[in-house]
Amino acid sequence: MPEPIALPLVGAPPPERRDAARNRELLLDAATALIERSGPRGVTMDAVAQAAGVGKGTVFRRFESREGLMAAVLNHSEAEWQLQVMSGPPPLGPGADPWDRLLAFGRTRLETTLLHAELIREAGRTGARAAGAYSFTVTHVRYLLTELGVRGDLPILATALLAPLELPILDQQVNLDGFPVDRVHEGWVDLARRIVGR
Amino acid sequence: MPEPIALPLVGAPPPERRDAARNRELLLDAATALIERSGPRGVTMDAVAQAAGVGKGTVFRRFESREGLMAAVLNHSEAEWQLQVMSGPPPLGPGADPWDRLLAFGRTRLETTLLHAELIREAGRTGARAAGAYSFTVTHVRYLLTELGVRGDLPILATALLAPLELPILDQQVNLDGFPVDRVHEGWVDLARRIVGR
Repeated sequence: MPEPIALPLVGAPPPERRDAARNRELLLDAATALIERSGPRGVTMDAVAQAAGVGKGTVFRRFESREGLMAAVLNHSEAEWQLQVMSGPPPLGPGADPWDRLLAFGRTRLETTLLHAELIREAGRTGARAAGAYSFTVTHVRYLLTELGVRGDLPILATALLAPLELPILDQQVNLDGFPVDRVHEGWVDLARRIVGR
Repeated sequence: MPEPIALPLVGAPPPERRDAARNRELLLDAATALIERSGPRGVTMDAVAQAAGVGKGTVFRRFESREGLMAAVLNHSEAEWQLQVMSGPPPLGPGADPWDRLLAFGRTRLETTLLHAELIREAGRTGARAAGAYSFTVTHVRYLLTELGVRGDLPILATALLAPLELPILDQQVNLDGFPVDRVHEGWVDLARRIVGR
């Protein structure tokens, strides 16, 4: 029997593309590590190039500008979180009771938004923040509300549940009003209870 | 009996100040009329000067920049609306049932935000939007929730009721998702019912 010919998988990128993707991943990981260490303000194209061990030109070729890099880092982290929601372990991922999933969704969303506050602000300034991120959260919360048997205009109710988790609101409560994060979280759980009817 | 001496009223501005205030009012009215006719993009310092019948220098002296003028127009309209809430006719003003006042508050807030969408966007870009506007709305909704006997963390619940009325959320629903304004309004009333427990 002849050895089967190694046909490329459908959708699999050619070798150079795979290198580019690996390179991109490397740069995003380096930028993320830098942000975690010193905040987005300390991150320059130079610092990312140095941390990833590539030339500055490579960073500019991949992301065009610092704003582009910041938006890519944010999208990368958003994609990781979405993956956890869709296929990660319960209670955030599938398999748990929809109420427990909703609570895990709210808590991780609040934490992630506060963790990436500066990044969201910087990316938001260029209008580069992914609209896709918003529609994913509405779709997911709408699905959980359906599973919970909530009646009403679910896309609107889902938006109402998500609105207090948006950065400008959290910023106001945590950084201007000085509310502890736990209190803001408790308040969101109370809101969810009222909307769901528990 | 000698004629009483005309003492200046406590807090009354001296004549030049009164002229300046009248001038400021005149310029704000001219700018507001221009905005209503052709939107904020069509409003230039020149056009406002011409409409108010003053020199361009006067407009610059009062507001420093176009952004300053836009922020002043927004604050002016916000102050007018706050006056209606605090001392205007019911159901928005005092005298009506707190539930009816809450509904009137939500409807007028939604309408005003959509009407001034472009202005809020332009003023927001310079960071000049009044933080005082936000705290007024939270304080008022918190007061109405107290009057309605709602139990819980009222500042947080008030914020949750206000969050879906913020421009980025309304923008998404009305201009991107294409929801009719009536549907968004109905959704907000449903949210208020769930939070208040009606």
